[in-house]
Amino acid sequence: MRTINIGLLGLGNIGTGTFKVLEMNRPKIEAAADAHVIIKKILEKDVAKERDIQVNPEDFTQEPGDIFKDPEIDIVIELLGGIEPATTFMLDAMKNKKHVVTANKAAIAANFDKLKKCAEENGVIFSFEASVGGGIPIINAITTVLQGNEFDEILGIVNGTTNYILTQMTDYGLEYGDVLKTAQEKGFAEADPTSDVEGIDVANKLTILMALMFGEYVRPGDIPTEGISHITKAEIEDAKAKGRKIKLLASAKRSAGNLEYSVRPVLLDESHPLAGVSNEFNAVFIKGNAVGELMFYGKGAGPLPTGSAIIGDILQIAKAIK
Amino acid sequence: MRTINIGLLGLGNIGTGTFKVLEMNRPKIEAAADAHVIIKKILEKDVAKERDIQVNPEDFTQEPGDIFKDPEIDIVIELLGGIEPATTFMLDAMKNKKHVVTANKAAIAANFDKLKKCAEENGVIFSFEASVGGGIPIINAITTVLQGNEFDEILGIVNGTTNYILTQMTDYGLEYGDVLKTAQEKGFAEADPTSDVEGIDVANKLTILMALMFGEYVRPGDIPTEGISHITKAEIEDAKAKGRKIKLLASAKRSAGNLEYSVRPVLLDESHPLAGVSNEFNAVFIKGNAVGELMFYGKGAGPLPTGSAIIGDILQIAKAIK
Repeated sequence: MRTINIGLLGLGNIGTGTFKVLEMNRPKIEAAADAHVIIKKILEKDVAKERDIQVNPEDFTQEPGDIFKDPEIDIVIELLGGIEPATTFMLDAMKNKKHVVTANKAAIAANFDKLKKCAEENGVIFSFEASVGGGIPIINAITTVLQGNEFDEILGIVNGTTNYILTQMTDYGLEYGDVLKTAQEKGFAEADPTSDVEGIDVANKLTILMALMFGEYVRPGDIPTEGISHITKAEIEDAKAKGRKIKLLASAKRSAGNLEYSVRPVLLDESHPLAGVSNEFNAVFIKGNAVGELMFYGKGAGPLPTGSAIIGDILQIAKAIK
Repeated sequence: MRTINIGLLGLGNIGTGTFKVLEMNRPKIEAAADAHVIIKKILEKDVAKERDIQVNPEDFTQEPGDIFKDPEIDIVIELLGGIEPATTFMLDAMKNKKHVVTANKAAIAANFDKLKKCAEENGVIFSFEASVGGGIPIINAITTVLQGNEFDEILGIVNGTTNYILTQMTDYGLEYGDVLKTAQEKGFAEADPTSDVEGIDVANKLTILMALMFGEYVRPGDIPTEGISHITKAEIEDAKAKGRKIKLLASAKRSAGNLEYSVRPVLLDESHPLAGVSNEFNAVFIKGNAVGELMFYGKGAGPLPTGSAIIGDILQIAKAIK
């Protein structure tokens, strides 16, 4: 059996989750890949961290070139997060004829065309299922089996942190600040929660979905974006009294040839399918001119669901390069 | 640009829907396929039928060999329904090195291994996204981007006719026989509704899902199957009074190494995500050991949603044979 060697950039939560999924389901994954799948080298400074996985200390490197210049490495998984140096590393990997898999919505949203073009020029595959909706296979669906549709609309809850905060505020009548604090203690929110609570993460994901569904690239900064940090207990209670829930929605709609889009908190009737999506769950509703209405629901974050999406991308590359 | 030629077996509702999706979205479909996509020949006796599509009369044939022996035809779409002659036709097409796309759950469920093996032996692709859940891309998801999971469970509403009947009985307090009659008049149920209302169609779909998710082939006839024809208005009202809904569910669960499965009407609490799936909509809930819980929701039948899935399969074949 052939071997597919992977270079991993970053061994944080998602990297560790990806490693775990591979170990946990190795027989099924290798049968599907028709290959041994080996994580050969890992770019990571924090070698000593407790991770409850078994990594050979010799596999760690501090030098990106050790991965990009290794002729045995087929695929680079980029899990550093942030726009730079992640984008430069992905471009370098592609120029060295490595296929690239990433979960990094900020880097893709900022540099969608550049990354796509570089992959094409170098004849490599660029995959990013994990960047939107975590384990939910929305990107694969819209770019493969639903590609025979012209899409009309997308409406989604695509950020687990803000959905958790809004759900807790609604279910227990709590103030935003108190829930955020608990969420940070439990690891559901970052120490600096700005990107999540101000809707920036959602705007990044909407940029990616619009590029794939409508073929239009809109910079995340050009999407009218409003977060949830200003929402009060009183507003939530008021909505509740009217049979409604407040949800942070990414939305885009093609209307008379124009694309309208926004990220903002929306009052949804309790009977709306997205109103029942609670806590860390995500859901994406789309409408195509042939398939009609579709909804995908699942865990939008977390090491194992995100690892599932990354391994899914690895398997598609393994099949394509066979 | 290259041309991909298709031979179509059957121009009924689904065949006409597939034809329409192709005409409606031709620029996007041909760009995705990187090919002209042409329905070159159609096996269909009923040439004169009004179909509100433009078919060149010379494209019709009564002779399957005209399609299988045509060296220019790359893909055969089988939409005859029923186990035979559909299975024999699909095998003949594969032996003549044609890729095969079908929506025919009865034929796949009866002859899963034989069809799969024949495709492998002849080096052709065998695709059947449209056979389960109509336009919902469940088969693509479990066989591509979710393949890094070991699956634990599946629970689904996968028959639009019975879900329509149960929804109407629940919402309007009607008797089974009356709703069935209306459904038949509206074209939502067949003149002979046995396969739908006795759960046979659902069992066929469960056979396909279990083979793909658990790698176990269970004959549809070996799945404990109970339909909805015996359900009375009184039972529905009784369930309603207890805050529950009756839904016809396909279920399979891996438990201590064993696979447990059944097709039967189940009482669901109104808060259950599947309880809100109404009328002709389908929904499939699955659980994987990495991704956790996922749900897919959409139109499980109808010419355009099913056509969307068939065109999706055509596009994947077009990319694979490029």
